[in-house]
Amino acid sequence: MQALDEGKLEAYADTFTEDAVFGHTPGREPARTRPGILSDLYEVRQRQAADPQQRRHLFTMVDVEELTAGRLRATSYALVLTTRPGGGPEMVRSCVVRDVLVRDDGQLRNAERLVDHDGF
Amino acid sequence: MQALDEGKLEAYADTFTEDAVFGHTPGREPARTRPGILSDLYEVRQRQAADPQQRRHLFTMVDVEELTAGRLRATSYALVLTTRPGGGPEMVRSCVVRDVLVRDDGQLRNAERLVDHDGF
Amino acid sequence: MQALDEGKLEAYADTFTEDAVFGHTPGREPARTRPGILSDLYEVRQRQAADPQQRRHLFTMVDVEELTAGRLRATSYALVLTTRPGGGPEMVRSCVVRDVLVRDDGQLRNAERLVDHDGF
Repeated sequence: MQALDEGKLEAYADTFTEDAVFGHTPGREPARTRPGILSDLYEVRQRQAADPQQRRHLFTMVDVEELTAGRLRATSYALVLTTRPGGGPEMVRSCVVRDVLVRDDGQLRNAERLVDHDGF
Repeated sequence: MQALDEGKLEAYADTFTEDAVFGHTPGREPARTRPGILSDLYEVRQRQAADPQQRRHLFTMVDVEELTAGRLRATSYALVLTTRPGGGPEMVRSCVVRDVLVRDDGQLRNAERLVDHDGF
Repeated sequence: MQALDEGKLEAYADTFTEDAVFGHTPGREPARTRPGILSDLYEVRQRQAADPQQRRHLFTMVDVEELTAGRLRATSYALVLTTRPGGGPEMVRSCVVRDVLVRDDGQLRNAERLVDHDGF
């Protein structure tokens, strides 16, 4: 998430598997495959370009359980903050993030990330 | 805490020992024993029923030390957030949580949870 | 950070090495050496004495990598909260904290802490 917050979209996309599913916005089709996720990230960046701000994704309360050998379920809380130039931090959103993590070429990667937004 | 936030009160009560003490509100007698804690949780749920909201308890900065063999002291920060339907997250309370954790039938359970509220 | 938040300035200063560098405020010279850090902490305490409040430093997203044998780089998010008597928590600041941790006399201590403030 530090990579994403620093605008390193390729590094963030690389935390997903090649065939990953990433649903980050309720009511919107999840992005599929790593190139699909990356193109989704580029789109979000373009939309936010007019409103410069430093977003921070704070993941806490990470609860990990083994689904099957080599597949982990991680359920986390995510608090999204933003700070605009000269301002203080504001809370954007409180979420629950459900990941399926797999060993992929020696790396732990995300095969499925589904995000629920509180209050939605 | 994820269990509590999802309304699974029995699962949350089960993280305490049979004879646990749980003081969550300053100026109010702590709940005692697991059934006492559970009845306290039911009461809180009933009080909040008229105001639908998604509470989130974010524990961070967990500091663990061994008190005696098999008894752990965990001192954590807890930030309580709430999101109402259609709204964004709001901060409810900042707390310090002092736990005494023990091995209980193969599980790590809470024998004593005392919560201090900042600003009180 | 719990020590700092409880006003135990000496205990907090002791988490730094004797020759540590601590830059906590953009545009201000970092404090140098443990006594220099401690005198800086006393100064901050004096400045805040007129406005009683409970500050909380919530570090999350701690990312650790080994720089060289025995030197660790830790990059964390820090969310600074404050609660004034009778009030609820407010967000003060969102930061990125870059630490260099070393083994020092059997303890892991901070040789360099540089703090970037979001929105600055």
